[in-house]
Amino acid sequence: MNSVKVGICGLGTVASGTVDVLRKNAEDISARCGFPIEIAQIGARRDNPNVDTSTINVTRDIFDVVINPEVDIVVELIGGYEPAKALVLKAIENGKHVVTANKALIAVHGNEIFAAASRQGVTVAYEAAVAGGIPIIKAIREGLSGNRIDWLAGIINGTGNFILTEMRDKGRAFDDVLKEAQALGYAEADPTFDIEGIDAAHKLVILASIAFGIPLQFDSVFAEGISKVSPIDVAYAEELGYVIKHLGIARRTEQGVELRVHPTLIPARRLMAHVNGVMNAVMVHGNAVGPTLYNGAGAGALPTASAVVADIVDVARSLATSSKQPIAPLGFQPETLSGEMILPIEEVETAYYLRLSVVDKPGVLSKVAQILSDAGISIEALIQKEHAEDSDLVPLIILTNKTLEKNCMSAITSIESLDTICGSVVPIRVESLE
Amino acid sequence: MNSVKVGICGLGTVASGTVDVLRKNAEDISARCGFPIEIAQIGARRDNPNVDTSTINVTRDIFDVVINPEVDIVVELIGGYEPAKALVLKAIENGKHVVTANKALIAVHGNEIFAAASRQGVTVAYEAAVAGGIPIIKAIREGLSGNRIDWLAGIINGTGNFILTEMRDKGRAFDDVLKEAQALGYAEADPTFDIEGIDAAHKLVILASIAFGIPLQFDSVFAEGISKVSPIDVAYAEELGYVIKHLGIARRTEQGVELRVHPTLIPARRLMAHVNGVMNAVMVHGNAVGPTLYNGAGAGALPTASAVVADIVDVARSLATSSKQPIAPLGFQPETLSGEMILPIEEVETAYYLRLSVVDKPGVLSKVAQILSDAGISIEALIQKEHAEDSDLVPLIILTNKTLEKNCMSAITSIESLDTICGSVVPIRVESLE
Repeated sequence: MNSVKVGICGLGTVASGTVDVLRKNAEDISARCGFPIEIAQIGARRDNPNVDTSTINVTRDIFDVVINPEVDIVVELIGGYEPAKALVLKAIENGKHVVTANKALIAVHGNEIFAAASRQGVTVAYEAAVAGGIPIIKAIREGLSGNRIDWLAGIINGTGNFILTEMRDKGRAFDDVLKEAQALGYAEADPTFDIEGIDAAHKLVILASIAFGIPLQFDSVFAEGISKVSPIDVAYAEELGYVIKHLGIARRTEQGVELRVHPTLIPARRLMAHVNGVMNAVMVHGNAVGPTLYNGAGAGALPTASAVVADIVDVARSLATSSKQPIAPLGFQPETLSGEMILPIEEVETAYYLRLSVVDKPGVLSKVAQILSDAGISIEALIQKEHAEDSDLVPLIILTNKTLEKNCMSAITSIESLDTICGSVVPIRVESLE
Repeated sequence: MNSVKVGICGLGTVASGTVDVLRKNAEDISARCGFPIEIAQIGARRDNPNVDTSTINVTRDIFDVVINPEVDIVVELIGGYEPAKALVLKAIENGKHVVTANKALIAVHGNEIFAAASRQGVTVAYEAAVAGGIPIIKAIREGLSGNRIDWLAGIINGTGNFILTEMRDKGRAFDDVLKEAQALGYAEADPTFDIEGIDAAHKLVILASIAFGIPLQFDSVFAEGISKVSPIDVAYAEELGYVIKHLGIARRTEQGVELRVHPTLIPARRLMAHVNGVMNAVMVHGNAVGPTLYNGAGAGALPTASAVVADIVDVARSLATSSKQPIAPLGFQPETLSGEMILPIEEVETAYYLRLSVVDKPGVLSKVAQILSDAGISIEALIQKEHAEDSDLVPLIILTNKTLEKNCMSAITSIESLDTICGSVVPIRVESLE
């Protein structure tokens, strides 16, 4: 093989990083592949002042790239659903291999795209879609292929982790840190995707499919954001030996698969609790290997480009030796994907942190304890605070043992109806990650 | 492809785990490959009461396995240099692919073995040789293939990390914890390989080769063990905001490649500092991805088997699509391996923790500071302790800035010749892992 030629669609941040990495590391990449990777064409509606394209064939019509006979691999870096989906399907139809960093596209349209790729015998690689530069797709699909994966849990949105880290380290409020994150460019002007857990849900769906061998099913993820996490809960969690992280969690149970994104108390002694700022980390628990953890930058031009280029090298290496892709898109052969049910959140079993505002009178605690006990929920730990001078309300913090979400929610409704309870109970799920 | 057939040589701990994983996870493994992996034969001098071999063809002559025409992949799990080397070379000669967990064999004889494999067009896979179940070979060779790797640092010996963790958490002495580690089965009766850094050096050599594209060169590693680390240094390190870990470090510099294993102070805020007990972790810093970390069990029957089976699946997947191995044994094409010099330890630049026992008299500190200054070494931090009631000696702890090892050693010689200094200076290298 003389060279492998890529056509890059899009010229934003990640594309600019990809061009940069392919150029800067050309020598190492050639030495790894045994031949160079060349940029045959870039398709972009407008130039990017950070990228010197003087020596590259640039087209304003991104669809030119997928019909260019010179191009072996189409690199889709435009993001979003359309025209990305049409572009990728057209590339596949034309027999091109595809590398994409588009988590939304894979999470929502992946099943259709992989089926098309399978019919055409081409590869669709998407390492950059999850956790930026961390090679987590490869670790699960290949590195842990001898395992039955029991569960995984990840800090897979850097913006959210930055906000929670600042809240914890400096006792700051959510809104305040969000504004800073936006100023720093960590968060978008419309931060909904990041802070409401939608971005994390896209990534979690992909991770769960390759871990458990189930089709991609974005509609079944439960996602709860971090906008309601208050500094007081961060502080009480710490007092109890926990840290609040925004986790994507996927777990096999006998009843079905859990697929959920939400703020979570995790023990402070876990490695995951020390993953701070914009960094990402994914824990994967296999039945042979036990717990493993993968940590690194989850976003940014160069870290994401690192994953894009790794995918390009993977495809190029296999092009040099074979015309067939050795690994099925989701790691499992398509016909073996199981139809295991995704559990509705009400059926998920987990422990809870509950914060109540109670009237400081005898008998209140026993009523709350009775309601929990009637719901079959036992108490693991409890903190009752002193009341402030100007108030007769005191915070009561309860850590429960594991229970079904629906039992906990119904107990909360009963507790809130007590006349000695003020306002709503604040529940946050707790995971031991054991 | 109907099935891929493996022949396992050896029936010790890892082999027993491998048989276990292949059986227990047969369904998931088949679903991943598209065909089953079968155990065609086991070669072992004696039975293992933990493995039911009633349905397997067992031979007492391990060399039977490598000539068995039914066997596609020979899995070498006997360990040590011989007869492992002869067995692997014979397997290659017979056109078998090889999977091995043997770090000593690859570190010392890997160049010869890979050359033979390349001539025969077969694969030699060795994920299990480094860091047990953590897919670190795959992460570096494939997951970070777009990067120029700047450096890596790893806790790659679980026994050593268990001992250092106990010393830190409980203030225990080295000998005391070693005895417990031996009783728990973490350390061998002869613990030299683990505690003197030889096992870690084997693994480091392999990691450095795949990271930097250099031939395996075990003779050039500097290795210093942990037997001289004292509880008092662990405590002072903590006071200064550091943790002592036994690290394998490989780094590219303009002068050459650093390749060294030694006790190391690392900042307590690094994720690596929280990797405790028998767990392993490797940090890899690439010029695109930045710092990444991979954590998991570095030893044990099932975690090591996880890596062995992942290699089997990798080879099996590529057998199904091609007759050629897409990835060169060290990740870089053999003809591109560079002859970069490995730096002798004297030429390595690092910071130091120095512990001195000084006579508590005016002027001592200024003499020590003068010697360091004359050697071009600046002081980053300093702690002078109170002297005990029954002694006029006080401990003096110095953290230096980065300097060449030879400059530091020569300064230490001068310091030790002062008549106000008692005994030897204790130096421990410091790395910021930034």
